[in-house]
Amino acid sequence: MASSTLQASKDSNSMANAYADEPWSDRTLSNYIVRAEHPFNAEVRLDKLVEDFVTPTDKHFRRNHGPIPNINGAEWSMSVEIGCSAASAKSCTKTIRLEDLVSLRQFEVVAVLECAGNRRDGLKAIKPVNGVIWGPGTASNSRWGGCRLRDVLVAAGVPSNLCDPFYETPRHVEFAAYGEASDDVHYASSISLEWVMNPLNMVLVATEMNGKPLCRDHGYPARIVAPGLIGARWVKWLKYIRVQDKESDNFYQKRDYKILPPMANGGNCEEFWPQFPALMELNIQGVICRPTAEERLCVDKPYLVRGYALSGGGRAVDRVEISLDDGNTWDLASLYTMHAKGKESDNQSQRDWAEKQWSWVLWSYRIDNVPANCNIACRAWDSGGNKQPSAAVWNYRGVMNNAVFRVQPQTTSSAHSRL
Amino acid sequence: MASSTLQASKDSNSMANAYADEPWSDRTLSNYIVRAEHPFNAEVRLDKLVEDFVTPTDKHFRRNHGPIPNINGAEWSMSVEIGCSAASAKSCTKTIRLEDLVSLRQFEVVAVLECAGNRRDGLKAIKPVNGVIWGPGTASNSRWGGCRLRDVLVAAGVPSNLCDPFYETPRHVEFAAYGEASDDVHYASSISLEWVMNPLNMVLVATEMNGKPLCRDHGYPARIVAPGLIGARWVKWLKYIRVQDKESDNFYQKRDYKILPPMANGGNCEEFWPQFPALMELNIQGVICRPTAEERLCVDKPYLVRGYALSGGGRAVDRVEISLDDGNTWDLASLYTMHAKGKESDNQSQRDWAEKQWSWVLWSYRIDNVPANCNIACRAWDSGGNKQPSAAVWNYRGVMNNAVFRVQPQTTSSAHSRL
Repeated sequence: MASSTLQASKDSNSMANAYADEPWSDRTLSNYIVRAEHPFNAEVRLDKLVEDFVTPTDKHFRRNHGPIPNINGAEWSMSVEIGCSAASAKSCTKTIRLEDLVSLRQFEVVAVLECAGNRRDGLKAIKPVNGVIWGPGTASNSRWGGCRLRDVLVAAGVPSNLCDPFYETPRHVEFAAYGEASDDVHYASSISLEWVMNPLNMVLVATEMNGKPLCRDHGYPARIVAPGLIGARWVKWLKYIRVQDKESDNFYQKRDYKILPPMANGGNCEEFWPQFPALMELNIQGVICRPTAEERLCVDKPYLVRGYALSGGGRAVDRVEISLDDGNTWDLASLYTMHAKGKESDNQSQRDWAEKQWSWVLWSYRIDNVPANCNIACRAWDSGGNKQPSAAVWNYRGVMNNAVFRVQPQTTSSAHSRL
Repeated sequence: MASSTLQASKDSNSMANAYADEPWSDRTLSNYIVRAEHPFNAEVRLDKLVEDFVTPTDKHFRRNHGPIPNINGAEWSMSVEIGCSAASAKSCTKTIRLEDLVSLRQFEVVAVLECAGNRRDGLKAIKPVNGVIWGPGTASNSRWGGCRLRDVLVAAGVPSNLCDPFYETPRHVEFAAYGEASDDVHYASSISLEWVMNPLNMVLVATEMNGKPLCRDHGYPARIVAPGLIGARWVKWLKYIRVQDKESDNFYQKRDYKILPPMANGGNCEEFWPQFPALMELNIQGVICRPTAEERLCVDKPYLVRGYALSGGGRAVDRVEISLDDGNTWDLASLYTMHAKGKESDNQSQRDWAEKQWSWVLWSYRIDNVPANCNIACRAWDSGGNKQPSAAVWNYRGVMNNAVFRVQPQTTSSAHSRL
């Protein structure tokens, strides 16, 4: 069994002690392609990923930068600090426990979580990159529940009104995680205070995933959910939340998760890190999940191509196009998505265009007669007029690859398949 | 003189009466390429456009859909209507005059205004398109002054707090203009209420441009300024503002300014209009202004390439790249921009990444030795991980063309230029 094999190899690892308490029983390994055991990094098999509009927890990708903390929820607390000086905010520190989070108004949001390194393999194919080599299986779309981070901050003394002079200066909210991380004393990251305080952005201190308490791999007992932003900002196992005048100084904010220009490589990155911003909003993305490259299609038979598409910042996926002729002509796929108040729909014209979109879109496209030489490409467009680029552009950290997705499945002649 | 020529040809127009009172004396025609006289549509000559970081009024592009209203500011009024039913907002109509706008807190923002049809010529080169054929000169970056639309709406009874249950339903703000429009009873358009009510989005009811009252071509006495959104939403000569449950039904919202898919053309558009959203956020754009295609460069001499770049939704331009070898390799241009509190800067690392960007960026790139066969391409990237696509994709209305910008100026050998 795959799980035992992983356990065995783990014991030979010099970090064995740090990883002695991993939640293996919560990991349905048959749903995943495991890219690294320590830290545990596993993407979802594409055929599994597209089976559900709301991704079940055991099919949600798992991305870690260290051992999984084992936290007793009853004993857990985090601090909330107002660390910037302004007349309208009192500098203070509050201790928050699980019961405090539950006492605030509870919200739910179906939001897609995507790792900025999703499809890093496509950039590695151009030139070596730094990071876990992911395929296209690090995006998942679960239902997150908890209180709004905004409400936690207001309770701690942050002015609730965005017209307050407090907001005339750009400010940041830093989150740090319990546990160790590979590249810094702990994992930490920040996003802008202005983004957090807009209640319609639905930034949560989440305590539930798909109606149950978070599992350990997903940040038990409390994590950030930041719809529309890259996964690296959805900090898990919260240790502290701090409102401050500058962004996080942590490795994962300042020296990772940035698109560096093509001349930046391992040796000369120091000059480039400060010149480019920490990634926040996801870009337009679309992936073909079925067929996979390994799948065998029957020539002249129909086939239903399926996949996912998503964008960042609340922008909606407006269309997904399919090409069967290397991008010369494109036809429209059918979209299935989630609109206002959590209503699922397969009809774009029922949308209210004023609404922000946090969920992914699943799409399908019927090929009536599979050709012998079957090349399929998908290209998604978002409501900001952005589309997937025809070719990937390499960057050192291998992030944000959203090039047109292409797959060339194997084919079998119908006659042969009947044998 | 060009102006007289235009005046003469105007008199032979059957619409002469409607256009008998155009503000010709306010139009410095030498700065423009006039694409149409009636309605007056003029883009800026690229060499003029890049001369100023803040575009002077007489170099700002001009885009109209009908004759220019001639409004007496002292007599002007607009109505503000809360046209949706909700417990927390009273349905009401207020009449607003210039003195009411001036009595509210005044703001200034340097914001780039771009027509969604900018660079439509690049799409026409693929296949005929519907609309004024624009080059890349319909983007300009002026300083706008006035009160916040948010404050006007709050004074009329709209709940100021985005946490109010009023905001749990997507709502829209429609603006209509005085005067005639070519395709509907008047020009009108809408944007989402949620966008308007975020004070950091700086949506203004502007009464000033570059420190002076708006000129007639730019909407005197009052217009919408909606930084980060396409120009079509910056409605001029305001007649009414209406908060409502649905988007505007006007032609310019529902049957124009949308990216239709490639199979949509003049004959079959009816089925596609309702399926695609009215454009809002600008996409990443970058243009080379100098050299122009007509300019003659000296081979082996240095040349400073210059241009502009911009993006939408508050996303910043993070980098502009230049290629001299048809896109095989790219080098970084130097950026000059405007940061928090209106401070101009040519140093990216001084930015606070939490801050939204409404201004364009001007950029420059020094070629040390101009090659004999000089091809220059520019590609800009924004903070959402979006970049200009390598090739344009045609759409019926010819909007949002942001393909990599290429120019091939003429060259003269240095020896020859000395003659």
